[in-house]
Amino acid sequence: MNKLIAEFIGTAVLVLIGCGAAVLGGDAIGQVGIAFAFGLAIVAMAYAIGPISGCHINPAVSLALYIDGRMDLVSMIQHWVAQFAGALVGALILWAIVGSNASLGQNGWGPGYLGEYSMLAALIFEVVFTAIFVVVILGSTGERAAPHFAGLAIGLTLVAIHLVGIQVTGVSVNPARSFGPAILVGGDALAQLWLFIVAPLVGGALGGLLYRFKILKA
Amino acid sequence: MNKLIAEFIGTAVLVLIGCGAAVLGGDAIGQVGIAFAFGLAIVAMAYAIGPISGCHINPAVSLALYIDGRMDLVSMIQHWVAQFAGALVGALILWAIVGSNASLGQNGWGPGYLGEYSMLAALIFEVVFTAIFVVVILGSTGERAAPHFAGLAIGLTLVAIHLVGIQVTGVSVNPARSFGPAILVGGDALAQLWLFIVAPLVGGALGGLLYRFKILKA
Amino acid sequence: MNKLIAEFIGTAVLVLIGCGAAVLGGDAIGQVGIAFAFGLAIVAMAYAIGPISGCHINPAVSLALYIDGRMDLVSMIQHWVAQFAGALVGALILWAIVGSNASLGQNGWGPGYLGEYSMLAALIFEVVFTAIFVVVILGSTGERAAPHFAGLAIGLTLVAIHLVGIQVTGVSVNPARSFGPAILVGGDALAQLWLFIVAPLVGGALGGLLYRFKILKA
Amino acid sequence: MNKLIAEFIGTAVLVLIGCGAAVLGGDAIGQVGIAFAFGLAIVAMAYAIGPISGCHINPAVSLALYIDGRMDLVSMIQHWVAQFAGALVGALILWAIVGSNASLGQNGWGPGYLGEYSMLAALIFEVVFTAIFVVVILGSTGERAAPHFAGLAIGLTLVAIHLVGIQVTGVSVNPARSFGPAILVGGDALAQLWLFIVAPLVGGALGGLLYRFKILKA
Repeated sequence: MNKLIAEFIGTAVLVLIGCGAAVLGGDAIGQVGIAFAFGLAIVAMAYAIGPISGCHINPAVSLALYIDGRMDLVSMIQHWVAQFAGALVGALILWAIVGSNASLGQNGWGPGYLGEYSMLAALIFEVVFTAIFVVVILGSTGERAAPHFAGLAIGLTLVAIHLVGIQVTGVSVNPARSFGPAILVGGDALAQLWLFIVAPLVGGALGGLLYRFKILKA
Repeated sequence: MNKLIAEFIGTAVLVLIGCGAAVLGGDAIGQVGIAFAFGLAIVAMAYAIGPISGCHINPAVSLALYIDGRMDLVSMIQHWVAQFAGALVGALILWAIVGSNASLGQNGWGPGYLGEYSMLAALIFEVVFTAIFVVVILGSTGERAAPHFAGLAIGLTLVAIHLVGIQVTGVSVNPARSFGPAILVGGDALAQLWLFIVAPLVGGALGGLLYRFKILKA
Repeated sequence: MNKLIAEFIGTAVLVLIGCGAAVLGGDAIGQVGIAFAFGLAIVAMAYAIGPISGCHINPAVSLALYIDGRMDLVSMIQHWVAQFAGALVGALILWAIVGSNASLGQNGWGPGYLGEYSMLAALIFEVVFTAIFVVVILGSTGERAAPHFAGLAIGLTLVAIHLVGIQVTGVSVNPARSFGPAILVGGDALAQLWLFIVAPLVGGALGGLLYRFKILKA
Repeated sequence: MNKLIAEFIGTAVLVLIGCGAAVLGGDAIGQVGIAFAFGLAIVAMAYAIGPISGCHINPAVSLALYIDGRMDLVSMIQHWVAQFAGALVGALILWAIVGSNASLGQNGWGPGYLGEYSMLAALIFEVVFTAIFVVVILGSTGERAAPHFAGLAIGLTLVAIHLVGIQVTGVSVNPARSFGPAILVGGDALAQLWLFIVAPLVGGALGGLLYRFKILKA
């Protein structure tokens, strides 16, 4: 149960910090600031709750760990529930601070969304970069990895991924992070939510398979 | 006594670097620069004076450690005195460099203060994000935590928290950090100081209780 | 074979993240954002694939390691092939996301290229800063180096090098990173590619010689 | 002799990266970019040459180590010579890339220099922040310090110090870093050089005394 509470709190904090920076910081911090907020939220949680739950706080990460055989199916589904619930509560607290649900850091694409990239660009971006994210997670926590550095490496990877892709999709690579804001904002965010659930899970699975079949192996 | 000198110097340095960046760097570094200054001041002090005093340099952090049973009441109060005194001296040195006490990085809210958020938004922000800050501190310094990484994790968390909340309150999450500038600037800063003492202490207590009652437990 | 797959993927990721940030992030993240993307891509790959291949993902680095006697000639050439191929594939995936090959983060100099520096300035910059980069790599992975910190030190060095030189050449210090985009973009990028192969290799060799002849020695 | 070569190269790299970012990156990276370049140059050199010479690359740091009894007088003077020579060569290489010695990242104060702060403000800033810098260096490398983290802590501290003070003096806290550009630029930079030699040495001595007399002691 402690693991699930940790995942719940961790995912809520990811949304509060990452989406919070996007909404509250906004133009005052720019996309560089938003990118660091998302990534450093991972650093924060990795060292805070990592010793408890492993700090997945991302359904695509739990899926990759399941595919690589480091987690069983029931655990994965329990983690998913805690992660989606945490993201929703994080987005609710953010709404309380902002005082409006017009914008809660939701993902998207197409006309009116940041760089106005196509759905195809969004899809490729989310699949490829979730796969990269998961490769870093599985690699930096593997048997021969440098001990204790994974939290920094993974968080700083998420900074880099946001620097690349905020213009494209706002960057999900995490179905729960997209779910929380989309449910509360509704409209386009909700209509486009499917992509930010499917694509990260596909990317996470691809990353997991690279380790499952020992294609990336020391 | 060495611990209290370390806390005194550490809190003075936090104000000198964090508030110093806000006042001296200002628009030339923007809120991203200010956020990094506050957080990296924590990294600096964590590795410099952490071996001496544990580097709380924040009354809300000392309160959380007291609540979690890692510190006794008398020590906590001694730390508080050293922290408030250090913050005041840090703000005084900053005044000497700036040559004016019109602005020393004071916290605030409402009309005329950055994003002009309401008192309620300020209150929720400070309670919630101090709780998050304390969760990272207690988690990353716990028994099963990665050794020696806490300073980086905690400092980078404070960067992220500032990226989210400078627009809302300028970010306190630390009664001493708010006290030093407010005493010297007076006016609204002094009139609003109560919130930046109460809310971080409430948030710190909430974070401490999560560990005290083993809700967050490995 | 696993080493070469790791080098292939690692170099593709470097191009996807670094050049991706330049093209997709662009003005929205500025040169500070682009600098961090390149450097943090190294941090990501160092901890992910470092345990597999050592994470050179740069022909100039492999050359320096060969010169310092840490790698044999056949291995170096195999690494080169994997690195150039990976960079090309990374640039291809980036093209698919961007939807155009007009700009894929190619290096350059002269009229119309960022700060419009001369070929001589570009040449000196690339030689000197590749030598610096290689000194950090060889020094931070040497026998008496701090264990496990090399990935962070090397990646953050690449951030700093980009902060200095994006205006001058866009920063190569890595023939593969220049090769991928140049092949696909053609034009000036292809015509100027020779410098970004020759200069980093010369700089890498110079850095390697400092260690080979124990000029930098503990 | 190897120690002095390392100090020579390390100080040259600090000037090349830090002052290089100020001159070549300039407005394209802003003061946040320049601050990171200076600090990350320290991270780079700490892990590259730290195992050889301890990576002082700063006469004020060598002085503080001498005062704290960690270094003898002859060694300190040898280090100083290597550091000043390295800074000069670094500034010369930078001149070759820039193609002009009008601006090489020189320090200063008063009318026409960045925030146009007074000489008194410059003096207080340089003394106080060099003392802070030295406290972090002596504290993070002391007997009870976290092993191997000093390079990161010290480099990130220098980032923070630059975020505070670029507007005030361009930030020296290092007589050698000021010496190299000032000699080549001449004019005001040379006329004001005395302050950037005296004030950092005074601040470094103050920081050293805090440890020498065990005022900061675990």
